[in-house]
Amino acid sequence: MSNFLQVKIKPQEIKKGNSVKALLDTMGNSAFQGKNLALARDIWVRMLNDRTTIFFGLAGAMVPAGMRGIIAYLIKNRYIDCLVSTGANLFHDCHETLGRFHFQGSHEVDDIKLFEKGIDRIYDVFASEQEFRKADNFIKIWARGLDPKVVSGKRSVTTREFLYLLGGKLSKISKVEGILTSAYKANVPIYCPAVGDSSIGIALAAGRAEGSNNIQFDMVKDVLETAEVASKSKSTGVIYVGGGTPKNFIQQTEVTASIISDSVSEGHRYAIQITADAPHWGGLSGCTFKEAQSWGKIARDARSVSLHSDATIALPIIATGVADNFNTKKRRMPKFIIKEDLKMTL
Amino acid sequence: MSNFLQVKIKPQEIKKGNSVKALLDTMGNSAFQGKNLALARDIWVRMLNDRTTIFFGLAGAMVPAGMRGIIAYLIKNRYIDCLVSTGANLFHDCHETLGRFHFQGSHEVDDIKLFEKGIDRIYDVFASEQEFRKADNFIKIWARGLDPKVVSGKRSVTTREFLYLLGGKLSKISKVEGILTSAYKANVPIYCPAVGDSSIGIALAAGRAEGSNNIQFDMVKDVLETAEVASKSKSTGVIYVGGGTPKNFIQQTEVTASIISDSVSEGHRYAIQITADAPHWGGLSGCTFKEAQSWGKIARDARSVSLHSDATIALPIIATGVADNFNTKKRRMPKFIIKEDLKMTL
Amino acid sequence: MSNFLQVKIKPQEIKKGNSVKALLDTMGNSAFQGKNLALARDIWVRMLNDRTTIFFGLAGAMVPAGMRGIIAYLIKNRYIDCLVSTGANLFHDCHETLGRFHFQGSHEVDDIKLFEKGIDRIYDVFASEQEFRKADNFIKIWARGLDPKVVSGKRSVTTREFLYLLGGKLSKISKVEGILTSAYKANVPIYCPAVGDSSIGIALAAGRAEGSNNIQFDMVKDVLETAEVASKSKSTGVIYVGGGTPKNFIQQTEVTASIISDSVSEGHRYAIQITADAPHWGGLSGCTFKEAQSWGKIARDARSVSLHSDATIALPIIATGVADNFNTKKRRMPKFIIKEDLKMTL
Amino acid sequence: MSNFLQVKIKPQEIKKGNSVKALLDTMGNSAFQGKNLALARDIWVRMLNDRTTIFFGLAGAMVPAGMRGIIAYLIKNRYIDCLVSTGANLFHDCHETLGRFHFQGSHEVDDIKLFEKGIDRIYDVFASEQEFRKADNFIKIWARGLDPKVVSGKRSVTTREFLYLLGGKLSKISKVEGILTSAYKANVPIYCPAVGDSSIGIALAAGRAEGSNNIQFDMVKDVLETAEVASKSKSTGVIYVGGGTPKNFIQQTEVTASIISDSVSEGHRYAIQITADAPHWGGLSGCTFKEAQSWGKIARDARSVSLHSDATIALPIIATGVADNFNTKKRRMPKFIIKEDLKMTL
Repeated sequence: MSNFLQVKIKPQEIKKGNSVKALLDTMGNSAFQGKNLALARDIWVRMLNDRTTIFFGLAGAMVPAGMRGIIAYLIKNRYIDCLVSTGANLFHDCHETLGRFHFQGSHEVDDIKLFEKGIDRIYDVFASEQEFRKADNFIKIWARGLDPKVVSGKRSVTTREFLYLLGGKLSKISKVEGILTSAYKANVPIYCPAVGDSSIGIALAAGRAEGSNNIQFDMVKDVLETAEVASKSKSTGVIYVGGGTPKNFIQQTEVTASIISDSVSEGHRYAIQITADAPHWGGLSGCTFKEAQSWGKIARDARSVSLHSDATIALPIIATGVADNFNTKKRRMPKFIIKEDLKMTL
Repeated sequence: MSNFLQVKIKPQEIKKGNSVKALLDTMGNSAFQGKNLALARDIWVRMLNDRTTIFFGLAGAMVPAGMRGIIAYLIKNRYIDCLVSTGANLFHDCHETLGRFHFQGSHEVDDIKLFEKGIDRIYDVFASEQEFRKADNFIKIWARGLDPKVVSGKRSVTTREFLYLLGGKLSKISKVEGILTSAYKANVPIYCPAVGDSSIGIALAAGRAEGSNNIQFDMVKDVLETAEVASKSKSTGVIYVGGGTPKNFIQQTEVTASIISDSVSEGHRYAIQITADAPHWGGLSGCTFKEAQSWGKIARDARSVSLHSDATIALPIIATGVADNFNTKKRRMPKFIIKEDLKMTL
Repeated sequence: MSNFLQVKIKPQEIKKGNSVKALLDTMGNSAFQGKNLALARDIWVRMLNDRTTIFFGLAGAMVPAGMRGIIAYLIKNRYIDCLVSTGANLFHDCHETLGRFHFQGSHEVDDIKLFEKGIDRIYDVFASEQEFRKADNFIKIWARGLDPKVVSGKRSVTTREFLYLLGGKLSKISKVEGILTSAYKANVPIYCPAVGDSSIGIALAAGRAEGSNNIQFDMVKDVLETAEVASKSKSTGVIYVGGGTPKNFIQQTEVTASIISDSVSEGHRYAIQITADAPHWGGLSGCTFKEAQSWGKIARDARSVSLHSDATIALPIIATGVADNFNTKKRRMPKFIIKEDLKMTL
Repeated sequence: MSNFLQVKIKPQEIKKGNSVKALLDTMGNSAFQGKNLALARDIWVRMLNDRTTIFFGLAGAMVPAGMRGIIAYLIKNRYIDCLVSTGANLFHDCHETLGRFHFQGSHEVDDIKLFEKGIDRIYDVFASEQEFRKADNFIKIWARGLDPKVVSGKRSVTTREFLYLLGGKLSKISKVEGILTSAYKANVPIYCPAVGDSSIGIALAAGRAEGSNNIQFDMVKDVLETAEVASKSKSTGVIYVGGGTPKNFIQQTEVTASIISDSVSEGHRYAIQITADAPHWGGLSGCTFKEAQSWGKIARDARSVSLHSDATIALPIIATGVADNFNTKKRRMPKFIIKEDLKMTL
């Protein structure tokens, strides 16, 4: 028998009352994206066992779609070590932590009518524009009460520091465990490379227009810090939900680290992406981890999987699978510069 | 509160040891394709409760990817009533029922080397060309032993009759429950609108070249029969895995029925599609059920969902969910013309 | 300089009054799908220069979208030698040749209202259900007037023969150059592997229900004939618009030929596909030509390109480019079995 | 005749020596994305005629793919008024303006070998890692020579100011007309909402690590400025190549403007997007302009088109079409705050 024909595909079976764990175990014997779903769990578990610093990139309207609880769970149980997110997901997290909601809607609807009713649509999710403006206002007002040096812009802040402070504020006024609050409590850093490009940016711009803040973000320090996290880690792993700036920002940590140290990039050793994009459009969001190997962003012997799926399907399943297969309490934490250096130390 | 903002999206939670059923229940409170995954289960259960005749369209390399056991389960337990398939899936089912396998491989491989080794690749699935030729040969030899009227082409056969006979033959030589054998035993009809466009067609063409068969398929009777199944059913439901001829062939049953009876088409009352295609390319494979409503293929008050996902992820989950939520033994079978009229009656 | 860095990408320039030819020449110096667009033209021209038999697979609602004139042009000028099509495209061609039209519409519309008005929608194309039924009726009535042996089913017909007869009929009653009429005049064979799966099938089923025809298609002979065309050609090339049965049916000709001759498959030597599908879903429609090389469907040294684009953009451009760069009158026709063997010889 | 059936689709015709203009005119009579290609040109011309301020969002690896000359042409001829870009496209523009190149490669290649040879791959584009590092170095060294207040971080800069200064520097050392140099000369502002997330960010981080710069970006002012541009314009139009931060950043200008003025958002009046994404994944990159209407980002009576195509195909064609159909010299420039307020005024 050819050495190409070693591992038989086993016909999937349906079992009543089946667990997610057993389902994933069986899917691992299939093919296409079903197999990749199981493989994503396996690689995640493997990196947890390897004292790896795990970066998690979050793009797409995941919080409106209900994924907030999962991200918070991953942070709280330290299944991930550093979050890089779009601003929108963090704003929507803030909105929910403030006690408001996103709602199930439909993508087949009269959007002009929604506009007239003050309803914002995100595919099949509805939300109240008025409530969003309340969250904008909350951020604007909170920001003007920060340390005067920060408010005046004399002391610039990294997005990590800013989001840490925001998480702290939210933790005081809400017991709900969201993304920002969980990260604050678990001391997990959150970066937002395009913080202006979201309602957080809008809220701060509204404050600026009123003259109530002059907050300056130290975008370059964000880059430097994340490169240091990467270079000081024994090994790094990456998990991407969608592409966009979070994926690229995490990918580039290895390149930045190598440029600063004038050495050859080693690359992330574990890599998972959940994507609905495809490589043939040439963009970074859809590119393969093989392509990333040419740049040294991904290690030559990395374990990786590109899972083509909507994350609202894949993420709950994989996260359940990881929780089933890895006891986070026994995790030996990555040696990470977070405790001392990355804490907000105003 | 606006009537657009009624159903809150609940943040998904991770639970160790969670069941597929509970996962789906929770996903039903989310959005995007995660919500659709749960909705697909719900609509399927609903049609089972409504004495609906359920057509199932099967396209894409689902058997090589390990989905054969699931399709067989759905047939055996009568979660579906009529299968329309590509020829390839039926050929690959035959290959596996004959005791051979598909194998896990990789899509990143040297295909010239595979060719030299006699390995056929289907994305990340490998199979032996030599073994496929054995299955070709099996079909060719079996076909020349059929009723002389059929072999000579004097009596044409529908694809349903042909596949019923093939299922019967396979049932005698194998105890494995595959698609063709399960359908034979459960008297579930299988149609194959492009039977020539597959290794079944290749096998028969090889026989024809040798002069060992002159089998004629009555393609028009296939069309007529399926229209009759639709028109004589109290209500019909459709489930599509992929698009292609199976989807179109089932969709058109309602149109055909209306043309024959010179009436307005009523349309299928339940509709689920699992697809990786998109509507904006204009093709039938990716079109929405709303578009189908303009044609009368789908009823104006139908319950439907388009689920954008690889079926190797979605199908095992939905099928498990249906098995969890509907006891097939209590199903009141659709009044269906299958028993008398559709049986092979040579 | 590394041998990987040889061919510079030249920044595209905008020129007023530019020709399609010059645009394609410039795109050939770019990357991603723009480069592939130019490459598709180049490979097509190359196969025309190589006395290659060119198969053309047509899937997707290309005729409703206005591509009929292009296909007819390609046939008439012998830029292609054998057409394999979905039934729908041929039915829609018939509809237009009968003097009726498809109309520009919108995909954002109330489909229930369309249904009530008798308008069928194909993404953003509208058509009259009543007019479609007239075309159905035309086919039904024409079919019952065919040679009695054919009508009675005593003499089965290949889809090629059937469509040749239909093209001949249409040529008599219309001067419009459509697909079927052009193919009839140019003696270019058309195959339709899923002829039942379309309004042609519906029309014949309606006739069958009335007892006015018992036409039998010899699907196996379709398979055999196309394999013979492939095996008797000096070299073969393939062009696919979309996937579905046309792509698979043409791909399998090389496999069928090798099985019949009990030899190793040589594979098509030139290959172009215009597709909106992607490889990672595992289906044949989206698979790469590299995958096809493992099967021997595509030659190991074939020139090929997978162009990811809507064909309504790509086809008019590439076809113009081919017409610009190859004078079809100077084409040395492929040695092809069509003249004697494939003519309708009732 | 139904009022749904008014505009006939005209079969496309092939004409040797055809111009791009004539091709687009004909495509306008077709359907699917071909029709949208022509429509994109028409809407662009229309907004140029309406004294509209035109925002252009640029995402995806467009410069490596050869699109730099087109963007420069659009800026120079003022077919667009404000560019929002990913950092990568601006870095790659800088790389080319410094006299280096991107190269045609292949996506089917051994990436480990590329890594060893120092070749970075972007789908089918190759580039030299060493040359990229030279461009990094150029930026790093240039940055430390800026006005001491900027270098020290005492005076923060908007990304517009920073990129204006960079464009000025490049204009002095190169006569090549790239994006940054053309924008500098034409006084067209460029914003980069995730400037850290690119090799520009890497270069500055490398400088920061050495202690040679402490540049602070005023991300909030970027938000405020672009909102002011939108609110002070008679009308605004948007053109998106890809999604990502450029699309969202431009979309949000209308929301920001309405929040600052505490009014209802009016929305952009013209909107074109060239995208390979799809709405059903729920993300902003693939969302429809209808969805954007619910937010007030797009005006209720806006003219808009979503064109599903690789931009390397669509952009050269549309830009040629716009150049053919609109004489930019006759453009009445939008009343825009750029001249006085947005100039770099250190």
